[in-house]
Amino acid sequence: MVVNNKVDSLSYDVEAPPPQGASAGSAAAAAPPPAPAHHHAHAPAAPVMREGAAVMELHKVSLPERRSTAKALRQRLAEVLFPDDPLHQFKNQSSARRLVLALQYFFPIFQWGSAYSPRLLRSDLIAGLTIASLAIPQGISYAKLANLPPIIGLYSSFVPPLIYSLLGSSRDLAVGPVSIASLVMGSMLREAVSPDDQPILYLQLAFTATFFAGVFQASLGFLRLGFIVDFLSKATLTGFMGGAAIIVSLQQLKGLLGIVHFTSHMGFIDVMRSVFKRHDEWEWQTIVMGTAFLAILLLTRQISARNPKLFWISAGAPLASVIISTILSFIWKSHSISVIGILPRGVNPPSANMLTFNGSYVALTIKTGIMTGILSLTEGIAVGRTFASINNYQVDGNKEMMAIGIMNMAGSCASCYVTTGSFSRSAVNYSAGCKTAVSNIVMAAAVLVTLLFLMPLFHYTPNVILSAIIITAVVGLIDVRGAAKLWKVDKLDFLACMAAFLGVLLVSVQMGLAIAVGISLFKILLQVTRPNMVVKGLVPGTQTYRSVVQYREAVRVPAFLVVGVESAIYFTNSMYLVERVMRYLRDEEEMALKSNQSSIRCVVLDMSAVAAIDTSGLDALSELKKILDKRNIELVLANPVGSVAERMFNSAVGETFGSDRLFFSVAEAVAAGACKAQP
Amino acid sequence: MVVNNKVDSLSYDVEAPPPQGASAGSAAAAAPPPAPAHHHAHAPAAPVMREGAAVMELHKVSLPERRSTAKALRQRLAEVLFPDDPLHQFKNQSSARRLVLALQYFFPIFQWGSAYSPRLLRSDLIAGLTIASLAIPQGISYAKLANLPPIIGLYSSFVPPLIYSLLGSSRDLAVGPVSIASLVMGSMLREAVSPDDQPILYLQLAFTATFFAGVFQASLGFLRLGFIVDFLSKATLTGFMGGAAIIVSLQQLKGLLGIVHFTSHMGFIDVMRSVFKRHDEWEWQTIVMGTAFLAILLLTRQISARNPKLFWISAGAPLASVIISTILSFIWKSHSISVIGILPRGVNPPSANMLTFNGSYVALTIKTGIMTGILSLTEGIAVGRTFASINNYQVDGNKEMMAIGIMNMAGSCASCYVTTGSFSRSAVNYSAGCKTAVSNIVMAAAVLVTLLFLMPLFHYTPNVILSAIIITAVVGLIDVRGAAKLWKVDKLDFLACMAAFLGVLLVSVQMGLAIAVGISLFKILLQVTRPNMVVKGLVPGTQTYRSVVQYREAVRVPAFLVVGVESAIYFTNSMYLVERVMRYLRDEEEMALKSNQSSIRCVVLDMSAVAAIDTSGLDALSELKKILDKRNIELVLANPVGSVAERMFNSAVGETFGSDRLFFSVAEAVAAGACKAQP
Repeated sequence: MVVNNKVDSLSYDVEAPPPQGASAGSAAAAAPPPAPAHHHAHAPAAPVMREGAAVMELHKVSLPERRSTAKALRQRLAEVLFPDDPLHQFKNQSSARRLVLALQYFFPIFQWGSAYSPRLLRSDLIAGLTIASLAIPQGISYAKLANLPPIIGLYSSFVPPLIYSLLGSSRDLAVGPVSIASLVMGSMLREAVSPDDQPILYLQLAFTATFFAGVFQASLGFLRLGFIVDFLSKATLTGFMGGAAIIVSLQQLKGLLGIVHFTSHMGFIDVMRSVFKRHDEWEWQTIVMGTAFLAILLLTRQISARNPKLFWISAGAPLASVIISTILSFIWKSHSISVIGILPRGVNPPSANMLTFNGSYVALTIKTGIMTGILSLTEGIAVGRTFASINNYQVDGNKEMMAIGIMNMAGSCASCYVTTGSFSRSAVNYSAGCKTAVSNIVMAAAVLVTLLFLMPLFHYTPNVILSAIIITAVVGLIDVRGAAKLWKVDKLDFLACMAAFLGVLLVSVQMGLAIAVGISLFKILLQVTRPNMVVKGLVPGTQTYRSVVQYREAVRVPAFLVVGVESAIYFTNSMYLVERVMRYLRDEEEMALKSNQSSIRCVVLDMSAVAAIDTSGLDALSELKKILDKRNIELVLANPVGSVAERMFNSAVGETFGSDRLFFSVAEAVAAGACKAQP
Repeated sequence: MVVNNKVDSLSYDVEAPPPQGASAGSAAAAAPPPAPAHHHAHAPAAPVMREGAAVMELHKVSLPERRSTAKALRQRLAEVLFPDDPLHQFKNQSSARRLVLALQYFFPIFQWGSAYSPRLLRSDLIAGLTIASLAIPQGISYAKLANLPPIIGLYSSFVPPLIYSLLGSSRDLAVGPVSIASLVMGSMLREAVSPDDQPILYLQLAFTATFFAGVFQASLGFLRLGFIVDFLSKATLTGFMGGAAIIVSLQQLKGLLGIVHFTSHMGFIDVMRSVFKRHDEWEWQTIVMGTAFLAILLLTRQISARNPKLFWISAGAPLASVIISTILSFIWKSHSISVIGILPRGVNPPSANMLTFNGSYVALTIKTGIMTGILSLTEGIAVGRTFASINNYQVDGNKEMMAIGIMNMAGSCASCYVTTGSFSRSAVNYSAGCKTAVSNIVMAAAVLVTLLFLMPLFHYTPNVILSAIIITAVVGLIDVRGAAKLWKVDKLDFLACMAAFLGVLLVSVQMGLAIAVGISLFKILLQVTRPNMVVKGLVPGTQTYRSVVQYREAVRVPAFLVVGVESAIYFTNSMYLVERVMRYLRDEEEMALKSNQSSIRCVVLDMSAVAAIDTSGLDALSELKKILDKRNIELVLANPVGSVAERMFNSAVGETFGSDRLFFSVAEAVAAGACKAQP
């Protein structure tokens, strides 16, 4: 269908704004002499002359090429699911080449592996050993955060990094257990099963939840639904991470103070009550040791933050603290300082037989899997993207999700719990100069050596040191400056952030997250429900109409009301649109009455910013037209975008606005409308 | 803060498009001779001359006036909650006048009551009696749909219309029980309590649910949250109503076939199974009578639909059918045709004592109240708006909600169940020439007479006739043409419609509604997650850049990539934005390489259609800038709207783009960018 809606007569030169205060009746007369039509050569629309009036060319509103329903649907789906066009590189290649490319696509190691050199290995070796020194104490600590035996944390630092190095496309990601996912898994599973009373069942649930997390992550990637992680906004995450960090730190008061009987709840109030109720259990030796090491660790963190070249100070401090504190504890042999105890030696035992898919806990493990899955995915993807952007390469979000998902599925069969790319360790990895995923292999090798030979050394490691390591790690998640920036820039984002923060702190981790996601989505819906609408005026010296609130020099054209709609028109805002235009009309007419100007005779809806319209929106336009017709006011539309124009012509609205009420731009609409208003 | 970002030197006349195929290096040289600057008089920005180059004036991007946080919040809230500015009429009035206006505001009857005349009364009398003849049989029928005693339907047609006539602002609304809300209430309550085994409890729950529905409706109105009903899109409602109509009609097979033992489930499959399993209970007398009357009723409906002047035929047919069938049934005295039986005589007994707010059913009644409340509100508001638009007056949605809510709260204390404005009866009311809400009073009076004196006459009314009346009433809700239109215009709307339809039909009424609302909201989120982005080119003969897909004559400017973003930039799409721009860049560079043109040196983001931006969006812009900087490509922004510009300058992004990367329009951005690209 070709749309042809030239207006057949016109006379008003919009390049010069009508003098302010002049009535529409005299506007044409007051217009300056005709401007030379200096763009004839390229103009597709014919200029029309009228006696004694200036020339203005009208351009017709075009429609995009007509597509079949199937093609439109295919293009839309491709845009939703394959925005990155992953098959682009396969175009115009021989089939052998395609096979190689496919192999490289699914196993990025084949891409960078062939060019691997001893020089790269040297860098990766240093980086790998550095992150291993961090991963070993953190692994043990985070496992405790998830109420799991410390050894599980080491297992989880061995198998998943190996798998990721085959499948992952990030060069900087350091894979292993992370604090947030550990915390969430621990808090969700503990609600149903006590890790102290039923350790085997608890372990089964943890592995099963990890399996589900992996399945969920891999399916998101496979189904190209990766954009779902984008629904966790940065504001939400800032609040959530801050709240979780405080919860985690408070939990560590158990270890830091040496309290034996501690609440199993997560809430701020429960924990504080537990801390002060049990002050008889406070252990001065533990407190002294914990505080001292915590101070040292925080200090090294500060030093590294001030001078990024000294990253190795904070990277090495946890392992150093573990070694020193273990020696101290071994020398003292004080019974009042609780220690890790005996850890089994050897590599990961298989755990596929521990996955339980029937029974009453399936719903719980699926829920836990999805929650920890999405949280660890968010962290992993964000970390991957951050360092990819620093080092100027691309990571494919959906492929990363598959990699992380497969890694967790495999991990759940090898005594690992949920893992992902850790922000803190990846930063150290990057600072230590890692070049490829080989640094993960080096780290895994170091963990393997630890598992095989060094486990007995951890016997006397005090638990208090693990608490200090956890606090040091999570303190970086509290982003006060980020929250302040949110307040400054966007109050509603700040509200979402605070809701997540307080929800996590006072209610529960899941509730905090749910509230925050709810607020984030509500914010979007609110924007679509009450879109910005602005009255536009002509900016002097241009043909351009802009908001009179933003551009105070913009001049309203007498007898015209130009309204810009800055949102898609949907069922959520179609009624509002009509009401709002009517209110603008009332206000403008009152103003016109006061200043003795002519009343509004034409409403121009600037559709430039209307990205989409649905059936309710189309009906609302017809409705508005009907209402304005009754008051003898013209309604015309300016510059509908392709999809909107297409949709209008597919519906009855196209007939209403089709022939001479649809304009290329506001300027042309005003020009044509002005000429009509004058007989 | 005043933003001043004039570009200090420029040389490129964008009024004439560069010749296609020319490289950026030669673009300025190939430009036509300088156009006369014929808008000097009004120009606020100073034109800058460069040797041998044309003149172009640059306009600075303005910010809206600076507001305090509190003021901004207040204005935003006012826009969300008071889009219709209800206090406008109170401005500049004396306090006595204000009191009168307030009284008229809360009781519209004082507004139209003073001008009421015998001529109006005559019209209202005719209309009122006409709708009464429809309301009485429908009231009885709909009560059965909600599993309530028929008399409750009559009670509900007496008190609520009286209250509405005081508070309501619609002149055409005919108030009483409606089919959808009756169906939903019946199906939700029956899940918990059997109306046959525990009739008193069931009645209590129905009244309590009605009370909650009223509270919910009135609070929505009072809190000005009326826009929540807009979240039920037309597409959703089309599918939902169609499905509900079929469910209701199928349920009537019980009455039409004379089956005694019938399923209490609502699903299509259960009902059909019940119908054929119980074929031994089919009653030929009932079937003959039911089919005959159903045929007559549908025929009268057709006649009225063809010729709207004959509206009284379909309006009077139900009452006529009731009378004739009652006489027939009285004469035959056949035991095989089930009849209504004895109905109590007298006006509504008080039922405030039957409201139960404690016990195990509170959650159920609240849920039922909210569901029926929102559905009846949607119908009532839609009907009110439709006829207000036909008769060219305004109804205030929030005030209507309060009126309907108070009416239901009061109704629940006077043995009424949930009521609202009925579409079918309002249409008859309008056709019969009603002028004011007095027609509701007339109808209530007619119902009162019925309640006081005519109840014994209904003793022999066959139940089958009520089934025929219900089917005739709901058949109009099946809008096949509307669904076909949805398919034609918007496939996703059609999907939401079909999901609601099938959900209601195959799963349950609530589930169908939930699915449909979910799809509708998901559609909005999808639009925000994968916004339209278009490559723009210069439309020959203008200074305007438009999508090259929509306007095939639009010409890309060599060395420039102009990308229009047609959505707010949120956390949901900020990553996509970056990826998509990079993909456009890759495609354009490949194209440039093929055609031996110069590669892209400047990316212009046209922000005209970006209605809002959040912190993630701002970060994405910085991110994109950083990536492009590394490739030595300029990133500039054109025409940010007020709120976006404001937010940019409140954040660090303002510094990144502030000084010379923010332009009034794409044309000016290209002009300034072109000059920079040439040393």
